[in-house]
Amino acid sequence: MARSVAELRAQVRDWRAAGLTVALVPTMGALHAGHMSLVRLALTKADRVVVSVFVNPTQFGPTEDFSAYPRQPEQDSAAIAAAGGHLVYLPTVAEMYPEGASTMVEVSGVSAGLCGDARPGHFRGVATIVTKLLLQALPDVAVFGEKDFQQLMVIRRLVRDLDIPVEVIGAPIVREADGLAMSSRNAYLSAEERPVAARIHAILTETAGALAGGRPVTEACAAATAALLDSGFRAVDYLELRDAETLTPVTELTRPARLFVAAFLGRTRLIDNIGVQP
Amino acid sequence: MARSVAELRAQVRDWRAAGLTVALVPTMGALHAGHMSLVRLALTKADRVVVSVFVNPTQFGPTEDFSAYPRQPEQDSAAIAAAGGHLVYLPTVAEMYPEGASTMVEVSGVSAGLCGDARPGHFRGVATIVTKLLLQALPDVAVFGEKDFQQLMVIRRLVRDLDIPVEVIGAPIVREADGLAMSSRNAYLSAEERPVAARIHAILTETAGALAGGRPVTEACAAATAALLDSGFRAVDYLELRDAETLTPVTELTRPARLFVAAFLGRTRLIDNIGVQP
Repeated sequence: MARSVAELRAQVRDWRAAGLTVALVPTMGALHAGHMSLVRLALTKADRVVVSVFVNPTQFGPTEDFSAYPRQPEQDSAAIAAAGGHLVYLPTVAEMYPEGASTMVEVSGVSAGLCGDARPGHFRGVATIVTKLLLQALPDVAVFGEKDFQQLMVIRRLVRDLDIPVEVIGAPIVREADGLAMSSRNAYLSAEERPVAARIHAILTETAGALAGGRPVTEACAAATAALLDSGFRAVDYLELRDAETLTPVTELTRPARLFVAAFLGRTRLIDNIGVQP
Repeated sequence: MARSVAELRAQVRDWRAAGLTVALVPTMGALHAGHMSLVRLALTKADRVVVSVFVNPTQFGPTEDFSAYPRQPEQDSAAIAAAGGHLVYLPTVAEMYPEGASTMVEVSGVSAGLCGDARPGHFRGVATIVTKLLLQALPDVAVFGEKDFQQLMVIRRLVRDLDIPVEVIGAPIVREADGLAMSSRNAYLSAEERPVAARIHAILTETAGALAGGRPVTEACAAATAALLDSGFRAVDYLELRDAETLTPVTELTRPARLFVAAFLGRTRLIDNIGVQP
């Protein structure tokens, strides 16, 4: 395990000296099968896999769940080892943001709308911590889940724009048997809420089919939003069709698109997304 | 000469493979003896020296001199070779900012006040391009002049905050015989303005002495501003004493400080600075 940038770099340096390639899988811990799929994908892309576990304060809003976010470092470390990960990187907040730290990475364009609007400052925090992690480890590849699809696009953008020498790899969403996208926040769900949560994926799948079949975008999205509220969701933050590459809003399906949703079930905010082909 | 990131990286890779260390000297071209001192300093710090020449559009305000800024790539390349630099890196604007580029690096704190206030967005442009150049070349050391002292502090800050693996080295200001700090913008000065420009350094030196001798900060700065205007400067953007490390304003001289000035001589904006010891 590495707790500091210096320890992380020393390990990576040793691997490099031995001619080995390195993958990084950044996580916020509370690891589940979704994360494990990222580790397994990383193992196919590089000789050594570093998994970072860091609950990043700068990507949480003042009223969000930073302090409540589940933390279970021992369990996470065991899971990473069991999945074949070679190093757990568990930095402290003081290591990542020492006194006086005052630099942020800001991505415009792909970070606008969706979670960018719903969570002001969120992607600035994500962009900054991911830049730091990538420059601390300087891996050959870094793996991120498509569950946070907009985040993946923000990271692809900043890596290209800042010339960070790393290949970014997106990994498909891993789902529970009933279709619920795996998420550390699923732990917040009550026994009553849990089956309702699975409706998100069912409704997204249905809507993607309707869109592919020619149903008008505005109509299909309105119907999906209504269906979520009918199912028991308290509020829908957004339910929108966007271009799969640029993330600009799509009003007519002519190119590959992606349907995005964020909705509140009680106090828990769940997100999901699905590809839509014209 | 390298025109693309790929060419630059190929050369640096070859040097690394041969066990050589690399220094980067970022410039905007229009090279003068001040820049050459940076190259010579870099040669003492690393085996190979890359000098980048790029007039960075994102650090110029809409009413500033981006298009008028002197460009003389052939002359610069010859000067770099003569000084012992090993590679000139001359990227195009399209190479540095391809279509869709939308990531900026933002440093707060040290970038506030002084040129940060006088030139909104300037340090964001500087921080972004320097981050890119450092990540393109991944040098062991990078050399910047103390002429742009606030810029040097912004760069030190972002390198630390983003964990860029490079040592930042500041180089002392190089001056003309009459004390005028060397600057590419000195080329804008008319024959009548040129001797007046030298008054900046004389007045800063005098003021630094008065401050060290106990003259109150507000009084000394007001007198220096008046002296500049009397000498023929059209306007003084700022003349301020700041902490030498944090760049916070100093009202009483108790720690090492730095006196900063930006003033307009006709249409030319000149900057300079000097250390002040308590």
